[in-house]
This record gives sequence, structure tokens and C-alpha cells, in this order.
Amino acid sequence: MNKKIVIVGLGLIGGSLAKAFQKYSECTVAGIDRDPGVVKAALGCGAIDKAGGDEDIRNADLLYLCLYPQADIDFVASHIHLISPSCLVTDTCGIKSEICTHLPRMAKEHGFPFVGGHPMAGKERSGFAASDADLFADASYIIVPCGAPRPAVDLLKAVAVELGFGGTVVTTPEHHDQMIAFTSQLPHVLACAYVMSPRCPEHGGFSAGSYRDVSRVANINEQLWAELFIDNQKALADELDTLIANITDIKEAVVKSDAEALRALLRRGRLIKERLGE
Amino acid sequence: MNKKIVIVGLGLIGGSLAKAFQKYSECTVAGIDRDPGVVKAALGCGAIDKAGGDEDIRNADLLYLCLYPQADIDFVASHIHLISPSCLVTDTCGIKSEICTHLPRMAKEHGFPFVGGHPMAGKERSGFAASDADLFADASYIIVPCGAPRPAVDLLKAVAVELGFGGTVVTTPEHHDQMIAFTSQLPHVLACAYVMSPRCPEHGGFSAGSYRDVSRVANINEQLWAELFIDNQKALADELDTLIANITDIKEAVVKSDAEALRALLRRGRLIKERLGE
Repeated sequence: MNKKIVIVGLGLIGGSLAKAFQKYSECTVAGIDRDPGVVKAALGCGAIDKAGGDEDIRNADLLYLCLYPQADIDFVASHIHLISPSCLVTDTCGIKSEICTHLPRMAKEHGFPFVGGHPMAGKERSGFAASDADLFADASYIIVPCGAPRPAVDLLKAVAVELGFGGTVVTTPEHHDQMIAFTSQLPHVLACAYVMSPRCPEHGGFSAGSYRDVSRVANINEQLWAELFIDNQKALADELDTLIANITDIKEAVVKSDAEALRALLRRGRLIKERLGE
Repeated sequence: MNKKIVIVGLGLIGGSLAKAFQKYSECTVAGIDRDPGVVKAALGCGAIDKAGGDEDIRNADLLYLCLYPQADIDFVASHIHLISPSCLVTDTCGIKSEICTHLPRMAKEHGFPFVGGHPMAGKERSGFAASDADLFADASYIIVPCGAPRPAVDLLKAVAVELGFGGTVVTTPEHHDQMIAFTSQLPHVLACAYVMSPRCPEHGGFSAGSYRDVSRVANINEQLWAELFIDNQKALADELDTLIANITDIKEAVVKSDAEALRALLRRGRLIKERLGE
């Protein structure tokens, strides 16, 4: 594939996409970032071919929005006169309802295709310095078409495969956000809540894989995640209520020394995992 | 080191200890298990030198109890006439208050040393088939002396180092159980409670590392863990209450769209992890 790519925001995700395009495709990549030091670093290591400007946006085949959700919307609003009808605009936000309320409407009014996207990969560090051409290896790429024409959706799928993703799934904004509340947002809430235990600072010598796994993503970027949590407050609150109810059931069986009820609850968890073949 | 070892219970932990003794020491290992098939398998792969009997218990330098907590106590009670004053008896239970109420008293009455032990390693599978000589590589070995003489404690430490553990820590039963409620039991409760979400069975394509890490230990052995949870009910219930309160604080900030309070809570989590250098 040989396309003209513009990536807006060279953080962990934008930087990793840029590096993946360089490593796995023939595309040329123009990068835009509010921090000139990041653009310089990206040029220096060959992650981008050039610093992106108005002309690059005008000529782009694919424009990746890799900022925070509101900043993505603001960027499109202020550059919309530059975007050509042949440019596929996509985003990489972790929550889709908000983005998919605004961007498809703006795209329709101005005659370019918009397809929402969510590369399901991350790290407990953020920023360009943490970016990696192979961050997406075998990860899922979630595509939220929002009424875009079929060829635009197919192009985004083809790019994902070329960049090394393990596969793509297509869904609605609402279903995406409900699933992400469970698979991604809940573990981040949990990690932060978990490390707040007074026992946490003295865990050394008393911990192993279970501690490491649950606490890993407590290294959170609170600016980004606070926005994502609030953008998805209904689905996230529902998941948290479900989780609290399930924890409380287990706690009550423990406190009552009800071994039979406790075993039944734990068995339920085990069988769910086993049926998934995990 | 060249000692006569008896291991009672050739499950994941007992089996892995047997294999580690064979791989890393000159000790001879006699193995006892209620399942003759397991003893045969352990003999077949060289994990044990012989099936253990009364004579092996009589001559043992070190006796490892690797059953469930109550079964460990029962085993000592029914074999106590065989245990010599020069035999160090130790266990591998995940919770220490219960074991350390009974075994030090029995040891004192019969004149042999007992030191509690907890190898901080595990797997999401159990049984001899999952055992591994390197399960303990770099793990912590927690030692709970329960008033045993210094040489007995030093011997257990020396064995742990020889078997490849990363280090040892010495503590009281109460402190051990409080720490384990946080580092190990809480993540197991969480994993089971987490996978009970109605979203779990359809997570494929929508999940990545966060889901995998939190759900990993839901593959629980419910017989063992129900006993361990109830043996530690006060400390575990306290940790669960703390966790529920912390999750609820985050949830309320999300529901109120209070971005400032939410960022402050998430930042608190991040700073705890950062200060630990993790």
C-alpha cells in the first residue's frame, strides 16, 4: 500500500501508527503534534517523513486523529476546509459515542468519509517515547463505520491488516462503548482502587503475579482516562455496579463462613473462563 | 545440600518443590499422595526418588506439608508418632493463622521444630501435571517461624535459596495473612467477580492486556481457595471493604462528571505505583 498519511498527535498511539506505517507499508507519513520537540524526535528516528502542514492535510488519503476525544473534534472543526472528499478521516479514541455523535455529521456536511477506529493496544506508559512499531502486533482493531461508505470501511480494514493487527471487528458506537467499559475501563478503575489499599506500599516480598497483574495499569494517564470515563459514564457505572454486587456476594459468603455458597460463586467464575477456553 | 526430604501432597506446589529439589540439590525426595496415579507419574518423570512410607517419615530431615490447610493439620496429627526431633516440619499454605495456631503447639508437645512457609508462586492451573522445577524462580519465600529455634529457620532459608527462590522474608502469621489478603486473595476474588459480568462471554475482539490480566486467576481451584478465604475472613473482608469504598469513590466522580475529583483519584493511584518504582 502506498498512500499519503497524516497523523495528528504523535503520542503512544499516533507514534506507534507512524512507526508501523514506516515498517510495514510503502506509505508516506506526515506528522502533526503541538510539541515541536516530539515532531523533531519523530523526524529524527524516521517515524515520520515530514512535519505535516496544511498542504499535507489537503493531499492526504488518510487522516488519523490521535488526540484526546474533544481535541480530535476541535482539530477537525478548525481544519475542515482543508479536508478533501477523497480523504478518509478516522480516529483512535477509546470511547466512541461522543466522537461518533459529532464527526460523522461534520463529515457528511463537508463531503468526506469518516470511520471511527479503536486499536486495542496500549501500554502503562504514554507519549512518543513509549511508541513502538509493533505495539499492535496481533491486537484487535475495532471499526465503527457510523454510516460511512463500504470502500472507506474496507480501506481501514486493509490498512489494519497491513500494519500487523491480528484482526478487525465492526460494531456500533453503543456496543463498542459497552464492551470497552468492561474490557478496558473497569480494569483501569480497579487498578487505581486496588493500589489505594494501605497495604500496597509494603507489598514487596509478599506479592507475585496476581498483584502485578491487577495493579499494572494503575500507571494511568489521568487526563486522558478521566475524559474517557466521563464520556462513557452510563456504561462504566453499570459495569462498576455489577462488579461491586459480585464482589459483595463473595464477601458475604466469606464473612458467613458459607463454604458451599463461596465454592459455588468461585466455580461460576472458573466455568466462565473455562468455557472461553482461556 | 544433601538431605532426606519427604513431600506430602504432590500437587502444583508439592510437585514443583520435588522437581526443584531434584534439579537444584543433592537431596533425596520421598513423595506421598493419596492418588497412586500421581505418585506413579512423579516416580516416572523422576520428580521423586521413591514413594514415601512410615520409614521415610521417621528418617526425614525435612517434611514438607503441601496439602490444604486442614488436611496438613490432620496429616501431622495422624503421623506425629513417626516424626523425629531432628526433622524440620514445614508447610506451604497460603494462609498462616490457622496452621500456626495448631502446628507449633503439636510440634512443641512432640519435640520437633515447625516453621511455617509460603512459597509465593502459583499458576492458573493446579495439580502435579502443572508442576514445574522453575515455578519458584525469583519468587519470594515467606517464612513464619512461630517460635521455632533459629537453626530451623536458617535451614528453611538456605533450602529456599538453593531451590532458586529470589529471596526470603520473615514475619508473623497475622502480618502474613493481612498482606496476603491484599496481594493474593483480593486479586482472586476480583478475577471471579469480574468475569461474572454479562459482557464477559462476548469479549473477543474487544479486549487486550487489561482484560487478560484481571481475569487470569479466575481459573480458580474453588475447593482450596474457599478454605483459604474463610480461614482469613477478617483480613480479606477488610480489604474488600476498602476496595469497594475506593471503587465507589471513583464511580461517584464519574457519575457526577466531576473531572477534577476523578483526575485526583486516578493521580493518587498513579503516584502510589510510581513511588514503588513499578
